Amino acid sequence: MAGSAACVSGVAWLKKGANVPNVLKLEPLTKEAFAPFGDVICTRGNASFPINNGTTQRYHHVGKVQVHGEDGQAGISLAVGGAFSFPINIAMLERHPLGSQAWIPAARNPFVVVVAPNGANDRPDENGIRAFYAEGDQGVNYYAGVWHHPLLSLGQQGDFIVVDRIGSAPNCDECDLNQIFVIDGTYEQQAAV
Amino acid sequence: MAGSAACVSGVAWLKKGANVPNVLKLEPLTKEAFAPFGDVICTRGNASFPINNGTTQRYHHVGKVQVHGEDGQAGISLAVGGAFSFPINIAMLERHPLGSQAWIPAARNPFVVVVAPNGANDRPDENGIRAFYAEGDQGVNYYAGVWHHPLLSLGQQGDFIVVDRIGSAPNCDECDLNQIFVIDGTYEQQAAV
Repeated sequence: MAGSAACVSGVAWLKKGANVPNVLKLEPLTKEAFAPFGDVICTRGNASFPINNGTTQRYHHVGKVQVHGEDGQAGISLAVGGAFSFPINIAMLERHPLGSQAWIPAARNPFVVVVAPNGANDRPDENGIRAFYAEGDQGVNYYAGVWHHPLLSLGQQGDFIVVDRIGSAPNCDECDLNQIFVIDGTYEQQAAV
Repeated sequence: MAGSAACVSGVAWLKKGANVPNVLKLEPLTKEAFAPFGDVICTRGNASFPINNGTTQRYHHVGKVQVHGEDGQAGISLAVGGAFSFPINIAMLERHPLGSQAWIPAARNPFVVVVAPNGANDRPDENGIRAFYAEGDQGVNYYAGVWHHPLLSLGQQGDFIVVDRIGSAPNCDECDLNQIFVIDGTYEQQAAV
């Protein structure tokens, strides 16, 4: 859980006018929109084929597991996330440089997914931060090194399945943001057609 | 999906008195009972530790992903399994020699898990066949090479998360059993204490 050396302390935002926080609007979680950050794990919109003598449909390889480094292997964990409700403050992001990390609801819990591209000084690009609303039948798989916020289960405590790299090498950078973002639960306005 | 060379044809059971099928009683799915066959993926009975500044509890590495062979990697898939109801006939088993395979309900669907040890002629040991009732908050992870029945979602169509080996090498042996087993939905009697 060691922070990146390039990251500033947790109170840096106080010096930057955070009394007027930035509102971060939600976007629907689609495969296309999320592609720069990882996979959307969902049956909707994906192809399937029959297995098990036709009794099961398989949506093959919708999440690409990445394992880098010498001592790593993929593993399955479970997580129980505390309940969050809007408004949600976003003050930090983290990343796992050595492997992907998937979060998939085990009981259809919706959740909020916050990601950012990497930017100057190997920190999150705060101009590119985005928030997605994951429906209960959607999971996400963050690619290795993608800045993201820890689990934000919406409305109720949520059970999630986690697939990520298991290993002893340090694999979590945390970075406090220069500004606080507030997710108020409203969606980004779509451009009129 | 090529069958093992040691496996007999699908009608062999007809020659062996299958008019009196064997009833296969259910057992509760516990970590201890299932240990010879794989992992039970469940929060109950497992330890956890806090992550994400205490907002999440992690049940670490409850499923051990195995990937053997040259061209394989772990991957995440989804599956939608047709509904089964008792009585359920068990006439075949399959195994994946090159990797583990996890099945975890995405919406708390209970399911039935049928496994057998390997036996003579590299076939399932039909004397050791067992059936487990998986509650909706339980998944299983079959270890590489463990004989098991394809997905049996109970009562309704079930959405499942699958974590298994992705690769091009043949990785599924199917074997028709010498007898039909019938799962009638009742549990094995526990010995009186």
